[in-house]
Amino acid sequence: MNGAESLIRTLVAGGVEVCFANPGTSEMHLVDAIDRVPGIRPVLGLFEGVCSGAADGYGRMADKPACTLFHLGPGLGNALANLHNARRAASPLLNIVGDHATYHRRFDAPLTSDVEGVARPMSDWMRSVRESGALAADGAAALAAAKGPPGRVASLIIPADCAWGGASGPAPIPAAEPRPAPDDKAVDDAVAVLRAASQGGRHVALFVGAEALRGEALETLGRIAAATGVRTICDTFAARIERGAGRPVVERLPYFPEDAVKLLAGLTDLILVGVKAPVTFFAYPDQPSETAPEACHRHVLVEPGGAVAPALAAIAEALGAGSGAVRRAGLVRPGLPSGKLDPTKVATILAAMLPEDAVVSDEGLTASFGCFSATVNAPSHSWLTITGGAIGQGLPLSVGLAIACPDRPVVCLHGDGGAMYTIQALWTQAREGLGVKTIVFSNRRYSILQMELMRLGAGNPGPKALGMFDLGRPDLDWVSLARGMGVPATRAETAEEMAAQFRAALAEPGPALIEAVV
Amino acid sequence: MNGAESLIRTLVAGGVEVCFANPGTSEMHLVDAIDRVPGIRPVLGLFEGVCSGAADGYGRMADKPACTLFHLGPGLGNALANLHNARRAASPLLNIVGDHATYHRRFDAPLTSDVEGVARPMSDWMRSVRESGALAADGAAALAAAKGPPGRVASLIIPADCAWGGASGPAPIPAAEPRPAPDDKAVDDAVAVLRAASQGGRHVALFVGAEALRGEALETLGRIAAATGVRTICDTFAARIERGAGRPVVERLPYFPEDAVKLLAGLTDLILVGVKAPVTFFAYPDQPSETAPEACHRHVLVEPGGAVAPALAAIAEALGAGSGAVRRAGLVRPGLPSGKLDPTKVATILAAMLPEDAVVSDEGLTASFGCFSATVNAPSHSWLTITGGAIGQGLPLSVGLAIACPDRPVVCLHGDGGAMYTIQALWTQAREGLGVKTIVFSNRRYSILQMELMRLGAGNPGPKALGMFDLGRPDLDWVSLARGMGVPATRAETAEEMAAQFRAALAEPGPALIEAVV
Repeated sequence: MNGAESLIRTLVAGGVEVCFANPGTSEMHLVDAIDRVPGIRPVLGLFEGVCSGAADGYGRMADKPACTLFHLGPGLGNALANLHNARRAASPLLNIVGDHATYHRRFDAPLTSDVEGVARPMSDWMRSVRESGALAADGAAALAAAKGPPGRVASLIIPADCAWGGASGPAPIPAAEPRPAPDDKAVDDAVAVLRAASQGGRHVALFVGAEALRGEALETLGRIAAATGVRTICDTFAARIERGAGRPVVERLPYFPEDAVKLLAGLTDLILVGVKAPVTFFAYPDQPSETAPEACHRHVLVEPGGAVAPALAAIAEALGAGSGAVRRAGLVRPGLPSGKLDPTKVATILAAMLPEDAVVSDEGLTASFGCFSATVNAPSHSWLTITGGAIGQGLPLSVGLAIACPDRPVVCLHGDGGAMYTIQALWTQAREGLGVKTIVFSNRRYSILQMELMRLGAGNPGPKALGMFDLGRPDLDWVSLARGMGVPATRAETAEEMAAQFRAALAEPGPALIEAVV
Repeated sequence: MNGAESLIRTLVAGGVEVCFANPGTSEMHLVDAIDRVPGIRPVLGLFEGVCSGAADGYGRMADKPACTLFHLGPGLGNALANLHNARRAASPLLNIVGDHATYHRRFDAPLTSDVEGVARPMSDWMRSVRESGALAADGAAALAAAKGPPGRVASLIIPADCAWGGASGPAPIPAAEPRPAPDDKAVDDAVAVLRAASQGGRHVALFVGAEALRGEALETLGRIAAATGVRTICDTFAARIERGAGRPVVERLPYFPEDAVKLLAGLTDLILVGVKAPVTFFAYPDQPSETAPEACHRHVLVEPGGAVAPALAAIAEALGAGSGAVRRAGLVRPGLPSGKLDPTKVATILAAMLPEDAVVSDEGLTASFGCFSATVNAPSHSWLTITGGAIGQGLPLSVGLAIACPDRPVVCLHGDGGAMYTIQALWTQAREGLGVKTIVFSNRRYSILQMELMRLGAGNPGPKALGMFDLGRPDLDWVSLARGMGVPATRAETAEEMAAQFRAALAEPGPALIEAVV
């Protein structure tokens, strides 16, 4: 058995089922091992950013890592932006990155680069393999690191001769790391603040992330809110939110600083649950970075990456918070709009038609902020956002979501600017027959940047500045682009067309794209 | 004046005329400065890899740097693969990379990352700006570093508050660095070897790169070869080769190791002129990395990055090498082929129709190796290859070539796999009205990787392995893809169609794409 096979057998035994791959010559023995070892499914992406984004989506929904397969420093470089988003989502994700054979590096062949240097900024864990006999154990360590908790981006760099050299067999996977127990003092502090809130005189919110937004922990959060009357708020770009009819309702922090400041105004206490205190996405001249009032007390219940569910459970128990009065979203389907399409009408159509149990990949930015609020009373669904703000996440993410959740409908909401970044994902949707229904908000501009230019007080921008945020001249034709990659596509200019096309897309298996001209 | 304006005025005074840009919020004051300062043209790319590849192409032909404008770590990450190619081409290139305001970094907002860490692996020079008053001087230093000699990738990281804070004005550009003089001993050694060669008994080749492949230095090289009878060979992937009718002929090292070994077999001496000794592109089990015979003496005339032209001139003078007997390519136009299209017929059509003074961006890999040999007797032209082997270079490069050389025809030869990587470049071709004629070799596979899989002796690959190198299921429709970005496109399945479509494309201004089904 060679090193490559010892690695792939180790990963399969450790639960890895999918490899999002774009390999090259230096990964050929790993390709061969994936070919021969049963239990791992390769999914080809035509650009590495598709693979890293898909692995992120897979990890967020499957709660276990997929692996990727990348070609040397430049291939990994192409994956970095979505690895950044994956890190911010605390996704479990294992990168396998090929490198030149150890003895070949000193010749500085054209594709030689500092692979470790490329990996380091976007990896929580990194190791270069030194010999083929160690590859299985290194892979097991990488897999354990990726699994967390919390989920981590782990990068294993494999010189070609370590893949083709001999190995004795697969390695055992280390036992899962235990999660840290809740901090009793932090729990007591939070309970005291929450009790004070329920007696009036304090304005308290729980600012929550990670698993507080799903499953049992979300239920617990709802009980705490009901028992104390405090608000629950999540960050603008959370990794995964379970919401819709029947779920406890959590407010979402707005993107623009003045809106966030307004939402948080008057708070005396903010309890931080698995997230940092809210800050502006960017800095602006003469504006503070923090959006909660200066006088508001920040209480850290759980640090990012910590054990959110046990901490919330401890609080609920201390408060005797039952499930009776939890404020849950009801099921409300709005009527369908008509006339010329705009983002609000798209949001209404989505709210009217979003299927039960859908998984939504949202990179609509300015165009889809309204979709989130509109769908609070849609049937229960999962909502995933662009956690690290690196655009080009939405389409790749949808690939991973559909592979992790083959029985759930996947809807992808995307701005046109960001969708161009990793448009190659459409081809993988087509090849794998993934039932992703993509809505591209075709406003033919980087709308968020036009707004930011105005906000920064740039005066009267001239054509050079405006041209940098304008996607027209020529307009992108999304129907042609999608069809060019084998994805059926239509264009909607009215609400009636949009609703009919979305209904038709949902009724068919496989991918579909709608260019929503807004 | 703010820092941003002081920088842009400095760069314009230093000769920077073009900015290949994909900015975000943290670069808004730089956008505003580009808007207001005359003399710099922003060119929008819809993905950062388009911008870095375009800047590489511009630098290779203009012999001076363009700047780029990128958004934080993830934006720069998207640019890395083509920065790798640019470094390997020794292109002059200045990256401007925005970062969060200095005081905002500690809050770890979602887009925060280690921007220096991302820049380092693919930059020859890097600096983070500390204060707005220093930005102009930092920019001047970065520009000087980029200009070289040799050309370098310089990356300047600019926190947003250093762009919007006050500055006193532009900074002077440091004087150009002097090029090192030729090494007398190395010249004497080479002259002795060349004299011995001309007296018989030694088999000598000059292995050349950099400016030995163009202009006066190429003429000198031709004179030395004529005077001594030695061979001249360039590396497989050279940055820029001037060739075709009237030019001294230089052999090209083949890509596959066994072909390279064969070409170099029997050499007793290899004189290295601005390049390293030839090595295989990748390592293979039980094969040596070096392709020249072990017993062949390597003589370093000029190290990579050194002054090639003066060293060659010194040798020619010592040898008294005149220009009379230089072996130059003649002008030969082959007849047009007919019938079902294949890569050889595309090569013949190119040889028959390549316009005088064309600039060719070649990322055809297996499909275009034949185009290079076929065009040796075409009218004089420039040929640019994928220097670092990071695919996704060809289309972006063509953007920069067309902007650097607005009066020359630009032809882009591209494999389908690589063209998908940075396909967004087609939109920039359309927006800027660039006369790039792109031929996509649509063989619906990563052909080079299928060959490498066989070469590595992977036995009988199964469907999982084959699926990772196959671009079919579904086939990419290049006509739809190009039209979707505003580039007129056609599909050729026969040689007659190909010739007619190429002729029509050359007759029209603006971009065009031909899907050559091979």
